[in-house]
Amino acid sequence: MALKPNQASVDSITLFVALLSSCIVIGHLLEKNRWFNESITALAIGLCTGIIILFTTEGRSSHILVFDEELFFIYLLPPIIFNAGFQVKKKQFFRNFVMIILFGAVGTLISFVIVSIGTMQLFKKLDIGFLDIGDYLALGAIFSATDSVCTLQVLNQDETPLLYSVVFGEGVVNDATSIVLFNAIQKFDLSHITPSIFMEFMGNFLYFFITSTLLGVGVGLISAYIIKKLYMGRHSTDREVALMILMAYLSYMMAELFSLSSILTVFFCGIVMSHYTWHNVTESSRITTKHAFATLSFISEIFIFLYVGMDALDIEKWKAVSKSPGTSAGVSSILLGLVLVGRAASVFPLSFISNLFKRSESDKFTLKQQVTIWWAGLMRGSVSVALAYNQFTRSGHTQLRGNAIMITSTITVVLFSTVVFGLLTKPLIRLLLPSKNLSSTASSESLDPFPPKPMTDLPLANGQTADAEGGRDNIPRPTSLRMLLATPANTVHYYWRKFDDSVMRPMFGGRGFAPIVPGSPTEPLLH
Amino acid sequence: MALKPNQASVDSITLFVALLSSCIVIGHLLEKNRWFNESITALAIGLCTGIIILFTTEGRSSHILVFDEELFFIYLLPPIIFNAGFQVKKKQFFRNFVMIILFGAVGTLISFVIVSIGTMQLFKKLDIGFLDIGDYLALGAIFSATDSVCTLQVLNQDETPLLYSVVFGEGVVNDATSIVLFNAIQKFDLSHITPSIFMEFMGNFLYFFITSTLLGVGVGLISAYIIKKLYMGRHSTDREVALMILMAYLSYMMAELFSLSSILTVFFCGIVMSHYTWHNVTESSRITTKHAFATLSFISEIFIFLYVGMDALDIEKWKAVSKSPGTSAGVSSILLGLVLVGRAASVFPLSFISNLFKRSESDKFTLKQQVTIWWAGLMRGSVSVALAYNQFTRSGHTQLRGNAIMITSTITVVLFSTVVFGLLTKPLIRLLLPSKNLSSTASSESLDPFPPKPMTDLPLANGQTADAEGGRDNIPRPTSLRMLLATPANTVHYYWRKFDDSVMRPMFGGRGFAPIVPGSPTEPLLH
Repeated sequence: MALKPNQASVDSITLFVALLSSCIVIGHLLEKNRWFNESITALAIGLCTGIIILFTTEGRSSHILVFDEELFFIYLLPPIIFNAGFQVKKKQFFRNFVMIILFGAVGTLISFVIVSIGTMQLFKKLDIGFLDIGDYLALGAIFSATDSVCTLQVLNQDETPLLYSVVFGEGVVNDATSIVLFNAIQKFDLSHITPSIFMEFMGNFLYFFITSTLLGVGVGLISAYIIKKLYMGRHSTDREVALMILMAYLSYMMAELFSLSSILTVFFCGIVMSHYTWHNVTESSRITTKHAFATLSFISEIFIFLYVGMDALDIEKWKAVSKSPGTSAGVSSILLGLVLVGRAASVFPLSFISNLFKRSESDKFTLKQQVTIWWAGLMRGSVSVALAYNQFTRSGHTQLRGNAIMITSTITVVLFSTVVFGLLTKPLIRLLLPSKNLSSTASSESLDPFPPKPMTDLPLANGQTADAEGGRDNIPRPTSLRMLLATPANTVHYYWRKFDDSVMRPMFGGRGFAPIVPGSPTEPLLH
Repeated sequence: MALKPNQASVDSITLFVALLSSCIVIGHLLEKNRWFNESITALAIGLCTGIIILFTTEGRSSHILVFDEELFFIYLLPPIIFNAGFQVKKKQFFRNFVMIILFGAVGTLISFVIVSIGTMQLFKKLDIGFLDIGDYLALGAIFSATDSVCTLQVLNQDETPLLYSVVFGEGVVNDATSIVLFNAIQKFDLSHITPSIFMEFMGNFLYFFITSTLLGVGVGLISAYIIKKLYMGRHSTDREVALMILMAYLSYMMAELFSLSSILTVFFCGIVMSHYTWHNVTESSRITTKHAFATLSFISEIFIFLYVGMDALDIEKWKAVSKSPGTSAGVSSILLGLVLVGRAASVFPLSFISNLFKRSESDKFTLKQQVTIWWAGLMRGSVSVALAYNQFTRSGHTQLRGNAIMITSTITVVLFSTVVFGLLTKPLIRLLLPSKNLSSTASSESLDPFPPKPMTDLPLANGQTADAEGGRDNIPRPTSLRMLLATPANTVHYYWRKFDDSVMRPMFGGRGFAPIVPGSPTEPLLH
């Protein structure tokens, strides 16, 4: 068809969609393999395609699209984070809230300080171009953004709920913290830090956190209220699903517009939507949204890894570095070392502190669990790449030599950590948390990026769809019973439940308070 | 967040998403209204927003995004057409295949000839800028692209299956025909038409149709084969859904790449996917894809109408026209008149011909039904606008006076036909096809763009999801029984069924041949 303003874009979209499809198929075929996972498959396919393009274009280019932050932050990240909030086990998440904030926010700050100071001290000895204090602090933020997807694919949510929710929750808070830090660094003049500037910085940081959360909660509640009041599903499921998708995206874009942390906003919007809105829609909308959000998140993730793999071979960046391979290797090694140290310096002391406040022995983190948490945060992923591009390039191109080295080193660290650490994750966790946590069925069932429940659960089949917290909490199984005895009666949670039941649910719907649509298929099943 | 390369794009995306949400809510509230429908609501909201933007920018601009064909043809159109193929009642569609092709292809050609010759003759008397023969032929193609969504929202698929499938199928074939025509016109040098060039043109046209269809069928079968062979759903529903979405989109982009008719390709890909692939996936994937595709199509449609409404007030285009409002009004009236005449000249003779070949009286089109078909094709929509922009602007801007008049006239015709004809559709059809076709429940239930079944059907509730052709064909109700007696035993269809059952289904899956996944929720329900 002649209606293409831009033949190149049709070419590249076609190739990209074909590669995404092949990633899914190959990822599925390699599923039984104990080393591989979907991220590594996508990275590998991206690298191979990059090599082929490099040969066919005779070394001119290795990628079909220039790494575009807008694409990443406006289209690919929102579905991933929203789905994370939507599928999170809310009870677990809020029960371990303090620990998640401890690891996610305080841990990221520790790692940030160590990487920043470490690079400042160590890079002086290497012959790299000029970097100012803002660049060093940015490096701290860039290399504090972890990518725990890889570990989550191996951990089993049902067998180690505490570990899973800490690693998962920490990952989200960590993303938000490092991006908020990064933005604060770009905004503030940090060449002369005074106590008052520091206080302003911290105030800004807190303001970000609170307003972003409130915005997400607000938009989520509005969506619940509209859908409950209007009984949309009575006439059209599509309208409900469309409204949920649009409102979720709206929360993200509004946060962007108001210069808030859009990641936190859309995450909390996802939590609120799964707690209220999801219960107000029809049966089929529930199944649809649950799987559609997971699918969108899944496609976005593969997209990012494919992209990073393809971009890694971009010839332009490596040219500036090729004259001094030693320096570049040194920078990458230093960064990798600082990542390992920074992560250790946050996980082990924080685990020690959190263990102090726990009464029951069984609830404390064992050394093996601490090592698992440490390992889960070693991988660096797409957020690091996106932040590095933002700091060290101008519209995808690198001019200064120092900046070029930073970009190539970031890619090296991301590739190395994802591939090498990623490949070791399955065997390592099998070694650390044996048998109980990695039975063969459990591992194959939890290969989804965010698998809230195993596929074969019956509730989905007879229409009583899987609520992230519903159903199974009614039957106290050994683990949750033990946890219930171990943790002190949580008074905050008790009052929240009371408030939720008496004020929130009657207003915004939710389990047990969803509108009864006469003659609808949900009626006989839910009531 | 500071990570936005382009503040303007964040602004406009936020506003656009907010407007889309409000369209859904307002559209829902106006549902009971006998005049309004979702398209008109979106157009009206777009117009209002345009006015507000016009005032706030002090007359500089009325839209937040420049009309972008790439956006339209690469992102918005594919989900709409794919969903049309995916949700079509295949039996009805193929039973009336000859009639659909007759109305869709031959009818469009008649309308094309009439509009082209009519404009050539009538525009000479008006003082408009220079237009060459290519422009006149393009106008023929532009104003032959109908938009029957409006009528489909009012017709009931179950009560007038023949009428519905003819109007629906014709709409899809018409879209494809007019776009293929338009492209052929742009490609061929039509300043001196010889018989050999005409033959080449026709050959090209046929080649387009056949190869495009085959590509769509091929990609659809590959997706069915992969999903059947790999039993993907065993481990992850998300992977199945992702693969279906990606393969569908891949078929569209491949057709674009090979310069075929991507609309036909993705339409047939949708048909094949719903006939084979859809039966090979798990229960929850089936519900998810069914609703997710419908939702995407729904959002795309509202997006387009909102866009057209907003773009209609673009000040730049009207400036060139404002000096001679009479000429512009004349052009619009002529075009509107030619649309009415061209449609009449195709529908009534073709209905007469098709009635000649029908044995049973009850199967012939009555005059009232003919008027309904005529009316259904009077609306002009987003395809017309996109084609007009392609022919008469260069990257969204209009330089020549003649071109500016063509753009504004196109918008006038689209707005007038959608709003005025659209508002009259419900009352008119209520008048022409009374009681039986527009009972109050039926109308409120079929307000979806492509509602395959009413919401309250029980099969969806107990997991046996609604297959577009399955289930209800087993219980011969009066209408289908009458049709069965009326139409002669279709031998082609008989042999196809035999071939389908013995060769195709065992290979590609499909109803009754889907893989049995042990322990999966589909097993006890389907077998």
